[in-house]
Amino acid sequence: MITTLAGGVGAAKLIDGLSSIVPPEELTIIVNTGDDCEFHGLHISPDLDIITYTLAGLVDEEKGWGIKNDTFNCLEMLEAYGHDTWFRLGDRDLATHIHRTMMLRSGYKLSEVTKDICAKLRIKQRIIPMTDDYFATKIKTDTGIIHFQEYLVKRGAVDVVHGIVYDGVEGAKPAPGVIESIMDAKVVIVCPSNPLVSIGTILAIKGVRQVLRETKAKKIAVSPIIGGTVVKGPADKMMRYLGIEVSALGVAKLYSDFLDIFVMDEVDAPLVHEVEKLGIKAVVTNTLMKTKDDRIRLAKFVLDVASVYKKA
Amino acid sequence: MITTLAGGVGAAKLIDGLSSIVPPEELTIIVNTGDDCEFHGLHISPDLDIITYTLAGLVDEEKGWGIKNDTFNCLEMLEAYGHDTWFRLGDRDLATHIHRTMMLRSGYKLSEVTKDICAKLRIKQRIIPMTDDYFATKIKTDTGIIHFQEYLVKRGAVDVVHGIVYDGVEGAKPAPGVIESIMDAKVVIVCPSNPLVSIGTILAIKGVRQVLRETKAKKIAVSPIIGGTVVKGPADKMMRYLGIEVSALGVAKLYSDFLDIFVMDEVDAPLVHEVEKLGIKAVVTNTLMKTKDDRIRLAKFVLDVASVYKKA
Repeated sequence: MITTLAGGVGAAKLIDGLSSIVPPEELTIIVNTGDDCEFHGLHISPDLDIITYTLAGLVDEEKGWGIKNDTFNCLEMLEAYGHDTWFRLGDRDLATHIHRTMMLRSGYKLSEVTKDICAKLRIKQRIIPMTDDYFATKIKTDTGIIHFQEYLVKRGAVDVVHGIVYDGVEGAKPAPGVIESIMDAKVVIVCPSNPLVSIGTILAIKGVRQVLRETKAKKIAVSPIIGGTVVKGPADKMMRYLGIEVSALGVAKLYSDFLDIFVMDEVDAPLVHEVEKLGIKAVVTNTLMKTKDDRIRLAKFVLDVASVYKKA
Repeated sequence: MITTLAGGVGAAKLIDGLSSIVPPEELTIIVNTGDDCEFHGLHISPDLDIITYTLAGLVDEEKGWGIKNDTFNCLEMLEAYGHDTWFRLGDRDLATHIHRTMMLRSGYKLSEVTKDICAKLRIKQRIIPMTDDYFATKIKTDTGIIHFQEYLVKRGAVDVVHGIVYDGVEGAKPAPGVIESIMDAKVVIVCPSNPLVSIGTILAIKGVRQVLRETKAKKIAVSPIIGGTVVKGPADKMMRYLGIEVSALGVAKLYSDFLDIFVMDEVDAPLVHEVEKLGIKAVVTNTLMKTKDDRIRLAKFVLDVASVYKKA
C-alpha cells in the first residue's frame, strides 16, 4: 500500500506516474484542502479536482488544472451579472462544484463527496481530503490577511508574505482514512508540492505528523525546489519571505522529523551531504516532469529507492 | 402605462412586439412563477427567464427559451455525476440560475433578484414575478401529483390531467408592484399564454382578480387557442381533461369577470357572437406570430383596439 500527500499540479504529475505502475487499489492520495474556497455559492476544492481530473484522464494537461477542452460560457455570463471571475471555472468543471455543493448541503462530508465523485468518474485510487472540517489557508500581506486563492490567483502572488495562517486548524480533524492510510502504508510519498501551503497544511492536521513518525512505512519526499526555484507556484517566494532557506535543503528541514528519504534534482547534488546530516537519506535524479515518460520514470525511481533503502 | 400578464413563449412573442412600439419605461410585465423549480440546487424561473432573455435579445429564437448559441457542457457533466438532466439548462443560462440562487440565499426577494437581472441585462421594461412567495403548479395525474415541469418536460404532457393544484396559493401574496401596476395601467394585456397554468396562476394570487375588476384600465386578452388547438404547449389537452371547452370561447369564459376585449384569430370569427354574449367585445385578426413583423403587427392591433373600444 502506497499513501501520498498531495497538493495540486506537481503532485498530480507524480501521481499520474505512480498510477501507471501501481495497481489503483494500492494507491491512497491524501489531498490538501486549505485552498478550498467558495465562488458563486459553490464549494470549490482546487487540489482535489486537479487530482481527480488527472486520474480520470480529464485534466487540461496544458494548464495542469480544469477539464480539457472546457468552455467558459457560464463564467462569461456570471461576469455580466457582476460576479468576480478571476477564479477561472469552466462549464464542465462547474458541474463538479454544483454536485459537490449539493451533496455538502445535503449533509454529506467532503470525504464522502470525494468518494462519490471518484466513483462517478471511475477513479479506482482512493482520494481522501486531509480534513472534512473547515480549513482555510490565508496569507498575511501588507494589505491584510487574504485567502490563499486571492493571494495566488487574483493578485498573482505579488504580495510580500508576512506569514501564513491555517485558519480553522485547531478544529480540523483528519478525515476518515487519513491516519490509518499513513499508519498502514508500506511507503508514504510526499509529493513535490508547496511545502508550506500544500504539504504544510496536511502536516498541520491533528495527528498527522505524529503518525508519520510512528508508521513503519518508508517515508520519501520529492523536492519541489530545484536549484533554488520552483517549477510552478509561489513556494520559493513564500519561503524567502518567511526566512526559510529556498533550497531542497530548506524543504528537507521542514520534513526532517519524520522523513526517511529525500529525492532531489541532480542539480542539487551538492546538497546531499547537508540533507543527510539531518538523518535523511538523500538521492538525486532528474525530477522535472515534462512528459508522461518523465512522470513514470520519477515514480519508478521513488518506489525503487523506497524499497532499496532501509529505514534510517 | 401598459401592464401585461405573461407566461412563457407565447407571451414573450407578444411582449417582443409590444417592446418594439411601446417606450420601455411604459411597459410592465407580470410573470407567472408557478413553473419555478429547483434543479442541481439552483432556483429556476422558466417564464421569467424567457421574458428577460427575449427582452435582452438573448433568447434562443428557435426554441423560444434558453440563450441562443448556448452550450450544454455543464449539464453533460452533471449527467456523469448522476443528475437528472431532462430539464435542459445551457451553460450561459446556468449563470442566471446561479446568480438568482445566490441572491435568494442572501435574503433578497425574487422580485429584487429579477430587478437586478434586468438591470444587468440592460432591460428597461419592468418585469415583476407574480409573487415572491412559494407557489408551485402541480398536476394531478394517474400516477399522483407531480410538478408541472415534470408533467410537461420530463413526461411530455402525456398524462391524463385530473386537476391542477396551485400549491402555496393561500400564502402567496402579490409581489410589490403587481396590484399597483394593474390599478394604474391604461391597458392591461393578458398574453396568449396557457389560461390555466400561466395566466390562471397569476389570477389566483390574492387580490389580482379583484384589482382587474376594479382598475380603470382597458383589459384585453389574446386567445392562445386558435381553431380549437394551441400553437405550443399543453393548454388544449389540459382544458379538455378538465371539462373546459377547448376554444377561444372557453378561454374568454375564464376571463369573463374582468375582461373588456378579446382578440381571437380570424379562424375563430364564428365565435364572436358567443364571446360578446359574455359582455366582452370580441375582435378577430391573424394572431399567429411566426415572424418579428407578426409580433409587431399583433401588438399594434392589440393597442389599437384597446384605444378604440370604450369600456364595456
